[in-house]
Amino acid sequence: MVRHVAFIGLGVMGAPMAANLVRGGFAVTGFSRSEASTDRLAAMGGRKALTLADAVSGADAVITMLPDSPDVESVMLGDNGVFAHAVKGTLIIDCSTIAPSTAVKLQETAAERGMRMIDAPVSGGESGAIDGSLSIMAGGSDEDVDSARPVLSKMGGRIVHVGGPGSGQLTKAANQLIVGGTLELIAEAIVFLESYDVDISHALEAIQGGLAGSAVLERKGMSMLRREFIPGFRVSLHDKDMRIVVDTAREAGVAIPLGNTVAALMGSLKARGFGDADHSAVVATLELLSGREKRG
Amino acid sequence: MVRHVAFIGLGVMGAPMAANLVRGGFAVTGFSRSEASTDRLAAMGGRKALTLADAVSGADAVITMLPDSPDVESVMLGDNGVFAHAVKGTLIIDCSTIAPSTAVKLQETAAERGMRMIDAPVSGGESGAIDGSLSIMAGGSDEDVDSARPVLSKMGGRIVHVGGPGSGQLTKAANQLIVGGTLELIAEAIVFLESYDVDISHALEAIQGGLAGSAVLERKGMSMLRREFIPGFRVSLHDKDMRIVVDTAREAGVAIPLGNTVAALMGSLKARGFGDADHSAVVATLELLSGREKRG
Amino acid sequence: MVRHVAFIGLGVMGAPMAANLVRGGFAVTGFSRSEASTDRLAAMGGRKALTLADAVSGADAVITMLPDSPDVESVMLGDNGVFAHAVKGTLIIDCSTIAPSTAVKLQETAAERGMRMIDAPVSGGESGAIDGSLSIMAGGSDEDVDSARPVLSKMGGRIVHVGGPGSGQLTKAANQLIVGGTLELIAEAIVFLESYDVDISHALEAIQGGLAGSAVLERKGMSMLRREFIPGFRVSLHDKDMRIVVDTAREAGVAIPLGNTVAALMGSLKARGFGDADHSAVVATLELLSGREKRG
Amino acid sequence: MVRHVAFIGLGVMGAPMAANLVRGGFAVTGFSRSEASTDRLAAMGGRKALTLADAVSGADAVITMLPDSPDVESVMLGDNGVFAHAVKGTLIIDCSTIAPSTAVKLQETAAERGMRMIDAPVSGGESGAIDGSLSIMAGGSDEDVDSARPVLSKMGGRIVHVGGPGSGQLTKAANQLIVGGTLELIAEAIVFLESYDVDISHALEAIQGGLAGSAVLERKGMSMLRREFIPGFRVSLHDKDMRIVVDTAREAGVAIPLGNTVAALMGSLKARGFGDADHSAVVATLELLSGREKRG
Repeated sequence: MVRHVAFIGLGVMGAPMAANLVRGGFAVTGFSRSEASTDRLAAMGGRKALTLADAVSGADAVITMLPDSPDVESVMLGDNGVFAHAVKGTLIIDCSTIAPSTAVKLQETAAERGMRMIDAPVSGGESGAIDGSLSIMAGGSDEDVDSARPVLSKMGGRIVHVGGPGSGQLTKAANQLIVGGTLELIAEAIVFLESYDVDISHALEAIQGGLAGSAVLERKGMSMLRREFIPGFRVSLHDKDMRIVVDTAREAGVAIPLGNTVAALMGSLKARGFGDADHSAVVATLELLSGREKRG
Repeated sequence: MVRHVAFIGLGVMGAPMAANLVRGGFAVTGFSRSEASTDRLAAMGGRKALTLADAVSGADAVITMLPDSPDVESVMLGDNGVFAHAVKGTLIIDCSTIAPSTAVKLQETAAERGMRMIDAPVSGGESGAIDGSLSIMAGGSDEDVDSARPVLSKMGGRIVHVGGPGSGQLTKAANQLIVGGTLELIAEAIVFLESYDVDISHALEAIQGGLAGSAVLERKGMSMLRREFIPGFRVSLHDKDMRIVVDTAREAGVAIPLGNTVAALMGSLKARGFGDADHSAVVATLELLSGREKRG
Repeated sequence: MVRHVAFIGLGVMGAPMAANLVRGGFAVTGFSRSEASTDRLAAMGGRKALTLADAVSGADAVITMLPDSPDVESVMLGDNGVFAHAVKGTLIIDCSTIAPSTAVKLQETAAERGMRMIDAPVSGGESGAIDGSLSIMAGGSDEDVDSARPVLSKMGGRIVHVGGPGSGQLTKAANQLIVGGTLELIAEAIVFLESYDVDISHALEAIQGGLAGSAVLERKGMSMLRREFIPGFRVSLHDKDMRIVVDTAREAGVAIPLGNTVAALMGSLKARGFGDADHSAVVATLELLSGREKRG
Repeated sequence: MVRHVAFIGLGVMGAPMAANLVRGGFAVTGFSRSEASTDRLAAMGGRKALTLADAVSGADAVITMLPDSPDVESVMLGDNGVFAHAVKGTLIIDCSTIAPSTAVKLQETAAERGMRMIDAPVSGGESGAIDGSLSIMAGGSDEDVDSARPVLSKMGGRIVHVGGPGSGQLTKAANQLIVGGTLELIAEAIVFLESYDVDISHALEAIQGGLAGSAVLERKGMSMLRREFIPGFRVSLHDKDMRIVVDTAREAGVAIPLGNTVAALMGSLKARGFGDADHSAVVATLELLSGREKRG
């Protein structure tokens, strides 16, 4: 049974997730590139590790929450990394959003090294991480996912086992496709309505009440109207996620015409300097295309 | 104050809407191309009109619920139509989904003839029409929309005044853009996940729990998985709606890249003989494009 | 046999086309909104008409070269128009680019009025109009197109009879789809190559030598590199043409994914104030989308 | 000065290119996975090598003409490969179409090993390879490209130096973007015209005469009309090329909306089993989308 958890990556998402584990009664050792983050964890009852090796050496479970595939690969495979220093049988839970093919490869290597590993990316954003209501998409064997449940249930409100290794990442990719596309659809609706003389905040309220209602519209609609793009979830991360979507669909020969367009628009946004804005900034590209860039 | 209502168009949507007016205490006279429909209305306490002129002549308010712009134009402008036979001051409420420009023109003509008219298209589908929970998007003057509220509130759970003449239709167009696009995004997600070995019904459950959740996924996700395309809302009607969206965006010079693609896919679906299927059949076009058309 | 020709519309294209008819030995009476244009035609041997009725009343053939469908409809159907004033049996040749459905309707009306009419839109631009090398796409009966050949052959180097009424316009629509799309492809190639350190004018030369070579690249490639957008052919006209393409494809249920995107980009260009620039300005929208708008 | 040439890869393109070098007076040693190909080269005056090492060891220049990046990497970097067995100073000319980033990396490694290397992909197809009229896009230093000219000029009619290492591949990528897009535009035009009653072969003739004319329409138009998809250039290769285009544009943050759609359609075609058909088979996907798949 899992008692000691090493938590690697204490950023916007990782910090509150680790904090919820501390509150949930686990012995949590944190490691992060930012020492301030590990200090904060220590201040609330966790333990601070100075090296990755130190963090994982005594742990029953290792959780990683990192930006991209290369970060996860380096943390797992590096000389000072998880596979080199964790004891046999350790349960590794990668909550990062990375390429499904990378997740599968890492889990194969983990098995060769005598460890157990699952992919468990999350949806729900910073607020979901803080209040422990994340939706968690777990991929791996029944046994490993079951072992992880007590830990995952302190961080998320909905833990769904969606299949074997990589399935969590595939589900997360599908999730990001839908989120990015819905943001873009709402942005098109907003610029469309603004080009006519409609009371838009009332219009969005009416739209939210019918079949067009969504969590994206609920949470982002009004801030998009006001052109407030405070993250939230950064364009640069959603751009990375759309690349995973496009590449993974391509490998399978699956047509995703809307996904391709969303990826192009998100990439355009990043190229135009919006990488650190909230992903709802897609409305800005549409304005530009519609020759309406001067309006505030 | 409105007491006598003429209801024109007793189809899948119109019939339960008129029935709710009868139940709500209004004196309702129905007229429809199908005599069976007017008989059904009469059987539950309404009155059956044999001609359009007969239906509207004694009414305080006229409600129309018809398939497309030409139907509404002919009912309003025809020799035996509403404008020719309704008394001065009658309140005309068009609940059909038509081109915003047509709505504006009809309301101008109505004003010239001494009548009051608003556009009040609805969202929520057959089930919303039956249980009186439609979301209604009303465009017109404050006074006319206020006069219509007692009637509208028997048919809908959310009555939103979104602006002047045509605003209701513009809002409905934006609504249909989002609904069509969300269906397409979910279809892309489903075909993507099916091309890998993921437990899709669990994956959709996880997705619904996060930022990607929507009314479309809630109501249509599982039937799309099973490839059940029983309307619901027909492809041929959504195709018409997407034409309104594309044309109206074009007139304003607004870029809607996803909207254009959705319109093309909906048109393709209709061209391929799916006109009478539910609009969630967009998943079938994606399968075809992905070379997966033989799978069930 | 045709001797006297009335030429309606002496703009950028019409003026040199009419001039070639004068040089070719026809008796040409010109009519245009701009009296300066008719004066110039008179100065080189044509005759100046002060009214449309005057121009057509003595003519064996009437040629129209006008901007859009409403212009042609008004010239043909108006009280002072062609159908009202031309004698029975007059051969009407519409060289304008208009909606195929409008062309068909006008030819039906012409037949009812005892006249003969064909659609004969042209390709080749101002330079082709000046040197009489236009490619002319003629739709109508064998007999009428044959009657028109002596006239058409003074204006064009390639006269192709492509089918019955409206076929010329359908072919022109297909032509404009290809031209607009090729411009856009070349623009994408240019912005792509500029984002790397490639000697682009040499690269375009290499590309022109292989399977990617085209008349568009030949004539427009270098001016696109220099961002010189002097018409040539205006964005506002190509935008109109792309609307014809999109609408006509839609009526037939034909999927044109590239055509839809080209129409959206051309519309965006017009909305952003480039209506009077050459259609090769599509490269400017791509720069914008790529966050490269500041480069010269 | 180059006298002895090793030619690696004697496929549809490589075989006639090597043959032209033999005819041009070079001493050519061929190596290919297919021994029949090396035998054919030997029969016409070349020399047959049994191993890659054997082929390159005595050569002044090495030319490679291989399907994809991994093939070129393995031939260059393998234990029995070019870098291991060629003498210092050897001029390596890669005529394959591969990722620009791979070309740059290989040229850096070549320099470290004391060799000279350029990228020199070609355009013009099998017929261009046979009659020595290829358009060759060369990337590398002035000196190295100049050294390669005597060899290249036996294989191509237009040798263009487009910039430093990788520039040839970037230019080829832009070329394939335009070729793929033009095929798709012509396919859209054909399905559009077929949906109406137009004499299409005449229509294509008229279109070819104006601004819409292109090498693709000239060489592929009639076979597309007849639905003859004999390669020519295979869908699977063009699909690979479009991936290079999309990935390379993405790395630079360049928007290529048409390129993305072409890549998706080419990928769809491959997924549907058309990998070995000529790339002009894009017309088949459009028919499918237009619900016209049953027509021959």
